[in-house]
Amino acid sequence: MQISHLDLESLDKLEKRTRAHLVNSLSGFKSANLVGTKSKTGETNLSIISSAFHLGADPALMGFIIRPDISPRHTLENIRENSYLTLNHINSNIVDQAHQTSARYPREISEFTACELQEEYLGDFPAPYVREASIKMGLQMVSERLLVENNTIFVIAKILHIYFPKDCWDESGPLDIVKAKTVSVSGLDTYHEGLKIKRLSYAKQDQKLSEI
Amino acid sequence: MQISHLDLESLDKLEKRTRAHLVNSLSGFKSANLVGTKSKTGETNLSIISSAFHLGADPALMGFIIRPDISPRHTLENIRENSYLTLNHINSNIVDQAHQTSARYPREISEFTACELQEEYLGDFPAPYVREASIKMGLQMVSERLLVENNTIFVIAKILHIYFPKDCWDESGPLDIVKAKTVSVSGLDTYHEGLKIKRLSYAKQDQKLSEI
Repeated sequence: MQISHLDLESLDKLEKRTRAHLVNSLSGFKSANLVGTKSKTGETNLSIISSAFHLGADPALMGFIIRPDISPRHTLENIRENSYLTLNHINSNIVDQAHQTSARYPREISEFTACELQEEYLGDFPAPYVREASIKMGLQMVSERLLVENNTIFVIAKILHIYFPKDCWDESGPLDIVKAKTVSVSGLDTYHEGLKIKRLSYAKQDQKLSEI
Repeated sequence: MQISHLDLESLDKLEKRTRAHLVNSLSGFKSANLVGTKSKTGETNLSIISSAFHLGADPALMGFIIRPDISPRHTLENIRENSYLTLNHINSNIVDQAHQTSARYPREISEFTACELQEEYLGDFPAPYVREASIKMGLQMVSERLLVENNTIFVIAKILHIYFPKDCWDESGPLDIVKAKTVSVSGLDTYHEGLKIKRLSYAKQDQKLSEI
């Protein structure tokens, strides 16, 4: 098998878009979520993010990165005005609509309307969920930090509400996100379903792993 | 379809391990990488992380979270001593060995030996790569921040070297991480292959998406 090697110098020489494609695929499969927000004047916004990650279970926190000069800047404006937001798993039925939210729409156009996804309000939660998503969360922003390393904003948000199909959880283990048809993204534009290989037991020194 | 709803109060009431399984699966599919490091006295360490994420392409930066009280604390000690580290995609051939690195080994035992993965040194890079991984990177730590929200450490590292199978890249788009058999993880212990759905064109307002 032939192996390619790129060092920092050859990476820096790549055309900008090529480097973006390549470097965006280096972390592996990325989560694919839609962030739903609302401005203080009631305009809704929906944007795709592939940077949402698990930060901790107790308290239940999520982290994500916003690039203020590019895409979800309306998201950032909205959560600064009104600290609530939703995260909605992209599933295989709504890949095209979800990807389309990455187009640059003016703030007065809601991506919900433009991309044909439905706003859903659950309980008295003040941010819009995506009706077509089967796994969704309502969150509140806890903090934001400017990362001086590349002028991005690192947002931490606390999970307040979780919704998921009852048959995707056995009340003890992880959610069955394969059954929920959650997708992942690689690079900037490639979407994948998951195919379960196995679930493994808790690892201990000198003990053989078993499948659960 | 029956929908389950958990609010913060019901989430807080869950047994600790159950909550960890559930909340860890909420972000969606997570990247699955092995971090290779070496202490200043030459002891190597290898640990699995599911929190590595793309932070930016220019400069090429990766972020990840370390929980200093639990698992990859030797990783953190090593990169504080010697700022270099490697990130190695877990592929479907080495899922068991990779998962086993999450057991608590004393610092003098290398997970490379204990978990039957081979150290590989490429060029003069001072941290060990995983020979069995087909996509791997050499990085240098740029910064670390304590996140007071949950006492975790957020590490930013700069990509210095990238290695991948030549037939996984067309020199313009993303790496074909499906061909490379890269896996993802959901929750704490469930591993998945990716099944490509489609690659979509750059999204623009008032322009129909097409498959690439």
